Amino acid sequence: MSTHKILFQPHNREVTVNDGEILIRAALEAGVHVNASCGGEGVCGKCRVIIEKGDVEGGISERLDQEDQEKGYRLACQAVVKSDLVVRIPTESTVDASILNIQSTPRKTARIQHLDFDKLKEQGLFLPPVEKRYLELPGPDAQEHEPDVTRIVNYLRHHFDEHRLQFNLPVIRKIPDIMRENDFKITVTLVRPVHGGGKTRIINVQAGDTTGENYAIALDIGTTTVYGQVIDLISGETLSQYGEFNGQISYGEDVISRIVYAEKPEGLQKLHDVVINTINTVITKIVKRSKVAPDNIAAITIAGNTTMTQLLLMVNPKYIRRSPYVPAATLYPPFRAIDLNIELPEHATALVYPQISSYVGGDIVSGVMGSGMYRAEELTLFLDIGTNAEVVVGNKDWLVCAACSAGPAFEGGGIEFGMRASKGAIEDFSLDPISFEPMLITIGNVRPKGICGSGLIIMVAVMFETGIINSQGKYNQDMDTPRIREKEGIYEYVLAWKDETGIDRDIVLTEIDIENLIRAKGAIYSGCITLLEEVGLGINDIERIILAGGFGSYIDLEKAITIGLLPEIDPARVTFIGNGSLMGAKMSSLTNRIRQDVGDVTNMMTNFELSETQSYMDHYVAALFLPHTDINLFPKLKERLEARKNI
Amino acid sequence: MSTHKILFQPHNREVTVNDGEILIRAALEAGVHVNASCGGEGVCGKCRVIIEKGDVEGGISERLDQEDQEKGYRLACQAVVKSDLVVRIPTESTVDASILNIQSTPRKTARIQHLDFDKLKEQGLFLPPVEKRYLELPGPDAQEHEPDVTRIVNYLRHHFDEHRLQFNLPVIRKIPDIMRENDFKITVTLVRPVHGGGKTRIINVQAGDTTGENYAIALDIGTTTVYGQVIDLISGETLSQYGEFNGQISYGEDVISRIVYAEKPEGLQKLHDVVINTINTVITKIVKRSKVAPDNIAAITIAGNTTMTQLLLMVNPKYIRRSPYVPAATLYPPFRAIDLNIELPEHATALVYPQISSYVGGDIVSGVMGSGMYRAEELTLFLDIGTNAEVVVGNKDWLVCAACSAGPAFEGGGIEFGMRASKGAIEDFSLDPISFEPMLITIGNVRPKGICGSGLIIMVAVMFETGIINSQGKYNQDMDTPRIREKEGIYEYVLAWKDETGIDRDIVLTEIDIENLIRAKGAIYSGCITLLEEVGLGINDIERIILAGGFGSYIDLEKAITIGLLPEIDPARVTFIGNGSLMGAKMSSLTNRIRQDVGDVTNMMTNFELSETQSYMDHYVAALFLPHTDINLFPKLKERLEARKNI
Repeated sequence: MSTHKILFQPHNREVTVNDGEILIRAALEAGVHVNASCGGEGVCGKCRVIIEKGDVEGGISERLDQEDQEKGYRLACQAVVKSDLVVRIPTESTVDASILNIQSTPRKTARIQHLDFDKLKEQGLFLPPVEKRYLELPGPDAQEHEPDVTRIVNYLRHHFDEHRLQFNLPVIRKIPDIMRENDFKITVTLVRPVHGGGKTRIINVQAGDTTGENYAIALDIGTTTVYGQVIDLISGETLSQYGEFNGQISYGEDVISRIVYAEKPEGLQKLHDVVINTINTVITKIVKRSKVAPDNIAAITIAGNTTMTQLLLMVNPKYIRRSPYVPAATLYPPFRAIDLNIELPEHATALVYPQISSYVGGDIVSGVMGSGMYRAEELTLFLDIGTNAEVVVGNKDWLVCAACSAGPAFEGGGIEFGMRASKGAIEDFSLDPISFEPMLITIGNVRPKGICGSGLIIMVAVMFETGIINSQGKYNQDMDTPRIREKEGIYEYVLAWKDETGIDRDIVLTEIDIENLIRAKGAIYSGCITLLEEVGLGINDIERIILAGGFGSYIDLEKAITIGLLPEIDPARVTFIGNGSLMGAKMSSLTNRIRQDVGDVTNMMTNFELSETQSYMDHYVAALFLPHTDINLFPKLKERLEARKNI
Repeated sequence: MSTHKILFQPHNREVTVNDGEILIRAALEAGVHVNASCGGEGVCGKCRVIIEKGDVEGGISERLDQEDQEKGYRLACQAVVKSDLVVRIPTESTVDASILNIQSTPRKTARIQHLDFDKLKEQGLFLPPVEKRYLELPGPDAQEHEPDVTRIVNYLRHHFDEHRLQFNLPVIRKIPDIMRENDFKITVTLVRPVHGGGKTRIINVQAGDTTGENYAIALDIGTTTVYGQVIDLISGETLSQYGEFNGQISYGEDVISRIVYAEKPEGLQKLHDVVINTINTVITKIVKRSKVAPDNIAAITIAGNTTMTQLLLMVNPKYIRRSPYVPAATLYPPFRAIDLNIELPEHATALVYPQISSYVGGDIVSGVMGSGMYRAEELTLFLDIGTNAEVVVGNKDWLVCAACSAGPAFEGGGIEFGMRASKGAIEDFSLDPISFEPMLITIGNVRPKGICGSGLIIMVAVMFETGIINSQGKYNQDMDTPRIREKEGIYEYVLAWKDETGIDRDIVLTEIDIENLIRAKGAIYSGCITLLEEVGLGINDIERIILAGGFGSYIDLEKAITIGLLPEIDPARVTFIGNGSLMGAKMSSLTNRIRQDVGDVTNMMTNFELSETQSYMDHYVAALFLPHTDINLFPKLKERLEARKNI
């Protein structure tokens, strides 16, 4: 069989593959990232690459217009390698992790909640599950020569009132030498049992007094991104943070395509290895930035959705996508981080957040814990909009939850020029009400390349308020502007002309894009309504809204209400918590109380399958308007729209 | 550097080694076993090999007489390879494992205790720590689709009243498929917590109903031998048993030489690997013989002395041999068998017996548990004579213990023609009181090759009663027999003439041999006396003696009393239990009660260091006679000896 050399640009990486290999696989092998939302099925059209030299077979799709095809654009997932190649990956087909780590300011239209450390201490919520004790042991002599471990046990009992101790084997292996090399002055690391009956495990022993150095890692494994923090267990501070795209993206952008891939031979192992790789990249970075010695890191708390958690733990998620959608487990036992090849010291223990159902996972439980919602008096609606959307309603007495099939519109999926919130994405928008000329603001202030989720919401809200689209999301065809034009019966608005963009094509917002956004927001809104109705409540009973998720933080609250994504509520009652999953993981690192509570919360939280709820479809259909078929649900907006009409 | 080929016979194994390599290391590399009691220091003279072809440098020692040297005998530990060689290992230099597995009948002079299973059941001592439950689960549907693990938890709660369950990760990985492949009919394996507060761990899940198949392994790791049993946890029966020499013998015959080796670079790893190898050989054999499916083996209980346990667990035993003789730990946590490369299914859990001190280890604790001594009303003396000798005194209310530095005389060490109890060892002996001609009975009834420990006791007792040796262990030089002869001031008795033996040399018993035996028995006797004295008791307070250890089972009780190894006691009050360590390991497999009790027993058992006890040396010196300086301690023997004198 003949082989071909493929050079990827601008990465300048070369691989040799067999004749007939699919181009996207060659890119994977070269470690070159190409967007592929659909897992390589050729339907998303995201994996556009330019064949600069050489021949491929196939890769031409209706997703590529004639002009693009002539320029050498092909879909990498459909193109078969037939010769040596030089392939260029256009910027819009790659993901740019740098954006994840920009400390940008979330929109100011709602309160942003940070962890109030003093308050946590007041509430008794600062009891790290990992503690250190410094021991100045008496040495053995001819009269008293009890075993080394017994010596430590007795000292801990007498000086620190510690009982029910269990020593891990690797620690026992280290004890005899460390004790003697340091004149019997040592520091031991204790992991508290989550519940009273359990044992305190001694997981590490160190020379001298290292009690001042005690750290943990909080990790959020998202379908799209993996974020990590190094937490100082003494001060409670976050010493470093870093985010990285989840390497699994190359195997499909949503959980379903990941599950499909995991069912292939070796697929589960591959996805597991890839996310471990991403995790290790994140850990390496945050540990380096924090300047802590790895030996002083004793724990890692991990939160992720049900599929991410199962892939992490090598539990095949295949039944998650099959009716009746059953996850493997709710609670997982603690394990040693290195047993999953997570690059932390041998003694570091790992704990994952429990899952509620196939589509309400540990990230949501973590958010509920981190936001403190489960301790709140007021009726709270918690909404996490990420690759998936989940909603939790309740307070300290009860909690219900549901997953909404919102689709990937907020992440750019199903939107012709949709893209993630990275450089060149239109994130803010306004419209001249006379000329209908737009003002675009992009992330990084560069030429526009596409539209990110938060930009999309603003865009549609502005267009709706301006009246160039109606409540059904259709363009007003009577507008006197060349920007609104028709293409095969579908109208679109030209946001930027070809020569103004960074991608050498007109960037447009089509009626199909708007329809997809309306579907997405309708699914979330109706999900909230249905869930409330299931517990006998209405949207007006909500006293507080918590918006979680990286995306959530960038939502313009007023605009989100305008399109009917959120119910009309006093902005003062809305809190942005950002990455709630990471927040909860941090909280669990800092206090055993959260670990104790999380079991109760998991038991208490009742999951509703919206698809099985009679009324859901009615609510959904009613929500497929801007903002809703029943404008009276949005009285202030109604007032504003009427005022505008009267102008 | 030049290399040489070495062919070992009769094994017919060849290795290539560098010029200058020590011959015994070449043998190790070839997997050819050569006895080496002294760990290769050239002092034991056990590693005799014959150089049939080629040249070695050195290897000549005073341990080899002129005749042997001329025949090509060399000490393998001292011989340096200088050319290609053909080396023959004479039979007396190898160990023969077949003897370990002969179901021979122990001597009939005392009661032999077997586990009385019905009695154990009566006493509530039959509560296997590992149990299986068969579940016929309802399948999930659109209305009820709780996670797979939750489904099992709920079923176990409702049908079996099981609570506080924790699922191991590998089990969770298996559950989704096994459930569905078998119409939700599965069997789960539960491991009970040792104490009430703990969790019940689910360690395995199997298709269909396998509750009738539930097995465990009991293992005794001796310094010399490793014995294993497959235990049926339902019937309580031992399905198979097998013993094998501990592969570590090649690195030294006693614990001290093992510790010395373990301190060398990679030495600990090597000794660990070697014993794991032996364990796996034993397990393979017993599992095959028992015909059980490995997947139905869920637990292994291991008992061994402190050094064996630490080598097994990769805990460097170096401080065991250094004053003040401190072991690493008393209790070790349970672990997964495969984590130590023990070839059992992934789910099998391992538990090791706890240690008391550096020289009273898990084998003794196991013997105390297995013999039931710790539940006894009567004051019991438990004596385990193996490579080391340990004594425990007490009853259900208190227990004290000590290790006796008996030396290896009972295993053939320090005895010129001493050997282990294998083919050709003189195991029984009598003497014609007129001609002083001997009658020898050997194991396997072949030509004599040497003297085993039990034979040695009989020999010295008979010679003492016959009067050819006196109470100081010296030969009566006036005897009219060519068998008593002098060699450089030391007298010896010729047991077998060169042409009668299987080794082509005169087999003799020298005064030095007898002195070594007297020292060994004196150390044990005085150890018992001193230990009793420490708790304010005397030898006459002993109500029961339990003799443990492979060697112990073959002791002729009357003869052991005659030489003063054991105190004079009614034979009906002596019980032989054989391998007490294995017995205890079996008991722990069968009932959680023992596992609960063992913690209390370990805490209760007080260790005495005889060397630090003032009176020990006095008692020891007093015991260096046959049977003792104070013959009044042996009134019946005194009577017999006086009766004989009067003939």
